[in-house]
Amino acid sequence: MRKISDSTVRRLALYLRFLEQSTAQGLTTISSADLAHRGGTTSAQVRKDLSFFGSFGKRGLGYSVPELAGRIRDILGLKRSHRVVLVGAGKMGGALLHYRGFRQHGFDFAAIYDRDPKKIGSHWNGLVVRDIRHLEADLKREPTDIAIVVTPAEAAQDVADRLVRAGVKAILNFAPVQLVVPLDVTVQSVNMALELETLSFALANR
Amino acid sequence: MRKISDSTVRRLALYLRFLEQSTAQGLTTISSADLAHRGGTTSAQVRKDLSFFGSFGKRGLGYSVPELAGRIRDILGLKRSHRVVLVGAGKMGGALLHYRGFRQHGFDFAAIYDRDPKKIGSHWNGLVVRDIRHLEADLKREPTDIAIVVTPAEAAQDVADRLVRAGVKAILNFAPVQLVVPLDVTVQSVNMALELETLSFALANR
Repeated sequence: MRKISDSTVRRLALYLRFLEQSTAQGLTTISSADLAHRGGTTSAQVRKDLSFFGSFGKRGLGYSVPELAGRIRDILGLKRSHRVVLVGAGKMGGALLHYRGFRQHGFDFAAIYDRDPKKIGSHWNGLVVRDIRHLEADLKREPTDIAIVVTPAEAAQDVADRLVRAGVKAILNFAPVQLVVPLDVTVQSVNMALELETLSFALANR
Repeated sequence: MRKISDSTVRRLALYLRFLEQSTAQGLTTISSADLAHRGGTTSAQVRKDLSFFGSFGKRGLGYSVPELAGRIRDILGLKRSHRVVLVGAGKMGGALLHYRGFRQHGFDFAAIYDRDPKKIGSHWNGLVVRDIRHLEADLKREPTDIAIVVTPAEAAQDVADRLVRAGVKAILNFAPVQLVVPLDVTVQSVNMALELETLSFALANR
């Protein structure tokens, strides 16, 4: 398979979201123009994105919604569920734990960790907050490939190091710091203040 | 000024985060290597990023922390504070309302809106949840340039249309949908499930 860029992967995930909504609405076919509209791109780009994965769709008839959704799920590795651990039992951690989009796509929260004795042992959306000291031992027993880091900036790199040593291969990072990880580990960062700063820049430079 | 790419803007915001921490630690100068490490990039890229804005730093002495922080704040439009309205009083909206990084960088929540009668009138972190029906009238009285949309997917475009008509020029969108806005409005999207799907793709294609 050819190398697929990050931006293609992100568009595929957007197309999938749209295909799922189309399924819910009872639609069976969809045009590249509709997908393009939803993905914020052009029909030509949609056809190019999908061409990575062989031939899809019939000219004039559009794409079969269930077939295309299945192929994209396959490409994105979503035909299996993923165990996810969350580190950081703050307000944002709590909101993520309740975020419906995760479970819908097969991401199951298996554990939540904190180092605050006041939080450890409390119940969060059906999970008991665990002591971060047990992270390595737990992950040895319960292999997990995805972790979400929602700690303060100063704690995030240490937590990431421990997750990586415990075998985690993918980290979604909400701490406002660039994590340093080995080449075989993937990090995606969500930095909310930075998103607002990008908007501030746009407002200042219109 | 030359056109500055999105990725440069994002790195500048990361450098600023690091400069702020350096200030808190009492550091007065910083090297491009340190900035590069923090920004997940190279010293050459740091020098290139900063060269957009004229001459900074002295060879061998590094950059002055307060001077560089001030210049980046200026570039990012952070020398003024921004009124921000939030639409969607759910768990994620609540977490964002408490997110310290926003206020620290001059983003002040002025109002929060919902359409759920059970939420309207309740107190959230010092703000009273307002009825979304009053959005246009409120924004006419209280001009606001940034809005954060944390509604369900199906409500987001309608909310965005209303915000745009009311004069909002920048939207941070957490709803899992690509918003369509006029060219003079900037949208940044944070799509958490999509971030996890990118990680799932990386795991499936290692």
